[in-house]
Amino acid sequence: MASKAIAIIAGVGPGTGAAVARRFATSYPVVLLARNPDNYNSLVEEINKNGGKAMGISTDVSSPDSMKQAFSKIEQEHKGAAVAAAVFNASGRFVRKPLLEMTVDDFTAGYDVSCKGAFMFSQHALPLLLKHAEDANAKYPPTLIFTGATASIKANAQMSSFASAKFAMRALSTSIAKEFAPKGVHVAHAIIDGVIDIPRTKEWLKDMPAEAKIGADDIAETYWNLHQQGKRCFTNEIDIRPMLEKW
Amino acid sequence: MASKAIAIIAGVGPGTGAAVARRFATSYPVVLLARNPDNYNSLVEEINKNGGKAMGISTDVSSPDSMKQAFSKIEQEHKGAAVAAAVFNASGRFVRKPLLEMTVDDFTAGYDVSCKGAFMFSQHALPLLLKHAEDANAKYPPTLIFTGATASIKANAQMSSFASAKFAMRALSTSIAKEFAPKGVHVAHAIIDGVIDIPRTKEWLKDMPAEAKIGADDIAETYWNLHQQGKRCFTNEIDIRPMLEKW
Amino acid sequence: MASKAIAIIAGVGPGTGAAVARRFATSYPVVLLARNPDNYNSLVEEINKNGGKAMGISTDVSSPDSMKQAFSKIEQEHKGAAVAAAVFNASGRFVRKPLLEMTVDDFTAGYDVSCKGAFMFSQHALPLLLKHAEDANAKYPPTLIFTGATASIKANAQMSSFASAKFAMRALSTSIAKEFAPKGVHVAHAIIDGVIDIPRTKEWLKDMPAEAKIGADDIAETYWNLHQQGKRCFTNEIDIRPMLEKW
Amino acid sequence: MASKAIAIIAGVGPGTGAAVARRFATSYPVVLLARNPDNYNSLVEEINKNGGKAMGISTDVSSPDSMKQAFSKIEQEHKGAAVAAAVFNASGRFVRKPLLEMTVDDFTAGYDVSCKGAFMFSQHALPLLLKHAEDANAKYPPTLIFTGATASIKANAQMSSFASAKFAMRALSTSIAKEFAPKGVHVAHAIIDGVIDIPRTKEWLKDMPAEAKIGADDIAETYWNLHQQGKRCFTNEIDIRPMLEKW
Repeated sequence: MASKAIAIIAGVGPGTGAAVARRFATSYPVVLLARNPDNYNSLVEEINKNGGKAMGISTDVSSPDSMKQAFSKIEQEHKGAAVAAAVFNASGRFVRKPLLEMTVDDFTAGYDVSCKGAFMFSQHALPLLLKHAEDANAKYPPTLIFTGATASIKANAQMSSFASAKFAMRALSTSIAKEFAPKGVHVAHAIIDGVIDIPRTKEWLKDMPAEAKIGADDIAETYWNLHQQGKRCFTNEIDIRPMLEKW
Repeated sequence: MASKAIAIIAGVGPGTGAAVARRFATSYPVVLLARNPDNYNSLVEEINKNGGKAMGISTDVSSPDSMKQAFSKIEQEHKGAAVAAAVFNASGRFVRKPLLEMTVDDFTAGYDVSCKGAFMFSQHALPLLLKHAEDANAKYPPTLIFTGATASIKANAQMSSFASAKFAMRALSTSIAKEFAPKGVHVAHAIIDGVIDIPRTKEWLKDMPAEAKIGADDIAETYWNLHQQGKRCFTNEIDIRPMLEKW
Repeated sequence: MASKAIAIIAGVGPGTGAAVARRFATSYPVVLLARNPDNYNSLVEEINKNGGKAMGISTDVSSPDSMKQAFSKIEQEHKGAAVAAAVFNASGRFVRKPLLEMTVDDFTAGYDVSCKGAFMFSQHALPLLLKHAEDANAKYPPTLIFTGATASIKANAQMSSFASAKFAMRALSTSIAKEFAPKGVHVAHAIIDGVIDIPRTKEWLKDMPAEAKIGADDIAETYWNLHQQGKRCFTNEIDIRPMLEKW
Repeated sequence: MASKAIAIIAGVGPGTGAAVARRFATSYPVVLLARNPDNYNSLVEEINKNGGKAMGISTDVSSPDSMKQAFSKIEQEHKGAAVAAAVFNASGRFVRKPLLEMTVDDFTAGYDVSCKGAFMFSQHALPLLLKHAEDANAKYPPTLIFTGATASIKANAQMSSFASAKFAMRALSTSIAKEFAPKGVHVAHAIIDGVIDIPRTKEWLKDMPAEAKIGADDIAETYWNLHQQGKRCFTNEIDIRPMLEKW
């Protein structure tokens, strides 16, 4: 008998990824991918202690081999398991520089993670998502979610690395949605348009009320709501911003 | 003491409007606006019988006087009540004609309801939504939702009346969102991209599986999820389509 | 024998309209529509004096009767003439107000001119543009151009009247383009994203170099280039901004 | 004394690239970059014979070294020359496949040329374009043009490689436009939405009139018109389609 359907979250740090992991762990065993185990170790422990089931796998999402190994470990741990939800939340090195000061590596750093990584993650996850689509007992359609940003639809000066990567990921998301929705996989792209309230952004907007930043838990709840949508109501794109955002 | 916060749904027929009314009636007294009382009478009865609270008001949303009278009746019935949710779901007469065969009335028919009506509805609802924003006991931020369509972002041949109206409503929605979000009102625009499964569309796509149409109940659930979003996570636009939609 | 093909420009003031009239008058007799004859009288004189041919017609583009009369006068003056180019450059009363302070008239003022007016102008002009499309001697495909603005694609706070009107006009333009391109009429929408350098804006950005504003003559030249495009290369949308614009 | 300002076209085959080269060669010495010299040899000869000045350089635009060598050769041949126009017209290997059948190389093939290549081309060309911006005798502002496609704004099923690459290039174009317009460089992105009439597409749409395809010469003329725009009227994006295109 196949193991219980799982959720996989790629790109787990102290913000959105962790919040999404906690939220989805209330219904599914979760697998957390991050390059640095420090990013998931305490979270894995926390989830397992609180009655959930979690494992972390050190993964470089821009590396074909590393990604392949991660999914092998998932198969070892969760033999034959379908994937109920897969969330791609990784972002590459963020480069903001005048165009003439960038190296080729600077420029492609965003793409290698955000788009090439998202492609490889999707290739590994989709067969397992399709498996869930065929499971008559599945509570919700399998869901593949990509975390985008303001730069997914807006390319500002000095932001060519990040914006080109995020534009590219958005195209990937739509193309996969169109190919796999008829097979029962729900693909959604979220435009996170604002500063997420995480330790790293603690000093940003510090003179503003809490509503100037996006809550990571709120994003997680919205992702969960996307996951709950039925086959007769797939949302393929949402935007998210805090109450006080200027846009 | 003010009455309990209510939800108002403009444009109630046998589809989205009715489903939204039922969904929001599980938490709020609901007020249903439609020109023809046949569109809400049995629904009002059904909701009241099932333990909810509902009233219907015959309203021509394209008429300033009719809209004004509707909100007077709401104030009479729900004295001092704030509005927790207002959903504008009305659409004007649908005209699909070669441009040279349209009358000026044909052309403006869409705008008068979908945009001018949405504007007037918003003007009446916003002070009541702001009241809810100031209520420290409000469970969720007050929410103003506009129902758009494929034509909100795509203007096909012979669709100029409908598309220009829906484009215009989308602009209105965004402008209101930007003005009122900082005051705590959550404004969202939904692009309903597909055929909704209602009695009128029974014969459409009849050789296709149920997943070729959008479920009205599913739209209602998604609107409810939008309403539940907190101040640190407002979604201003979503799209919705059925699993089998080509797009 | 039919008269020479003409160009019609609706919305002639001291800026874009006048510049477009001058530019197109180098090839075609031009007809200028504006409510106030002061807006075209000296320009008509100037063009006629310089070897061109021009006439002005006082027209309220938001009035079906006035528009009808204008085209009757055109037919009287240019019996049987085809239209080589029609440019809709009119904008309604510009209202920038908090939503709750607007009257219904404030709100619809933009639409009545920018969209309803554009619709009526198109209905009158299209049969004459189609006539030019059938003329084997026509040098360029007949062209219908709509002047949009930043607000055609961006709806800011307090800008709901203008933005909803301009969004609507953009939808109209696309819908007409899709219906009439196969019949040989080139329809284009221009997003003018910046301040045009006209007498009224003299005090704006006055500490900035000339390149902070858009040149009306430059817009006219770009419109002329659109007109020159052949049937195998129709541009349906362009944006225009000055070198120093922030966007 | 510096050499005369030149135009550089990357991605020269028998279609758009060649037509653009011919058009710009009427005003500037042109440099043609293509991997395979067969793609430019006869064209270089033709232009030189007809009174223009042309050179071809075998270049792999996805290779940093090859791109660097190309610009060294340009500097040798045109010592100190500014660049009046640079057109990036290269596209990578076109892959249309179900997502699960693609290799990582298939997926990144589009990006490596269309986006990474465009980035490197821009980095080499921009200092020379800036030089032209500072030349008081320059007739037109220096212009950097990127050739996009339908897939620049639409990501269909099985098109994730091409669409993600083209979305990414569009972001790059906008980001560069915003950074360099204030310095006087005009950056434009063209969405070529349709089949271009070239030898390779001869059999496509062969039962349709000539107006079902885009003329390469027409694209070139439109690019030339973009180049002619003054500093008070920069177009940053245009679309182009043939009269009979469905969109």
